[in-house]
Amino acid sequence: MNETTHYALRTTLKFDDSGLITAVVQDNTTRDVLMVAWMNADSLRLTQETGETHFWSRSRQELWHKGGTSGNVQRVREIRVDCDGDTLLILVDPAGPACHTGETSCFFTKLETRD
Amino acid sequence: MNETTHYALRTTLKFDDSGLITAVVQDNTTRDVLMVAWMNADSLRLTQETGETHFWSRSRQELWHKGGTSGNVQRVREIRVDCDGDTLLILVDPAGPACHTGETSCFFTKLETRD
Repeated sequence: MNETTHYALRTTLKFDDSGLITAVVQDNTTRDVLMVAWMNADSLRLTQETGETHFWSRSRQELWHKGGTSGNVQRVREIRVDCDGDTLLILVDPAGPACHTGETSCFFTKLETRD
Repeated sequence: MNETTHYALRTTLKFDDSGLITAVVQDNTTRDVLMVAWMNADSLRLTQETGETHFWSRSRQELWHKGGTSGNVQRVREIRVDCDGDTLLILVDPAGPACHTGETSCFFTKLETRD
């Protein structure tokens, strides 16, 4: 993808005052919501260039290649943006669990169920 | 739900410095990710008490009952929290489109597709 396209894409996105945008990651096959993390412009560019998710770690203040250490990378199938341009939805084929606990999804805890 | 339960639930959640937590809303049947919005403790309490999603509008700085005007309410089926307690996943049966544009989901715009 060339720089012009990058520029064109990024202008439609609203990064917050810290230069970040929320990214929801969904399994392209099971449709499970796997995790929510943050991206800055660099991590979005790396995600687009490599086809694997990269995020910005707010706690460590560094770029983070998901699965770079564990091998549980997330291959990107599609990136969507919401109507006001401040949230990304990233559909992926995961190579392994999304959660550091070993669970498939980070959302393994129920707060409440209604029948 | 009694106050003790509310208290117990809220202590497991990490609201940010503005008292907000990210809420991802997913259709319980189609599994589409419909929208992402913010909740404060009051909107979460109202969501739990009424069984319909309530959010905090950062732009208007007010509580917002989703569908309160349009009728497109979202009946809550399940609320999940992620492993670090700072994001909610809310599974809903929506009475109509989630997006103010009339689209089913706010994520109707593709940034990129990989084949």
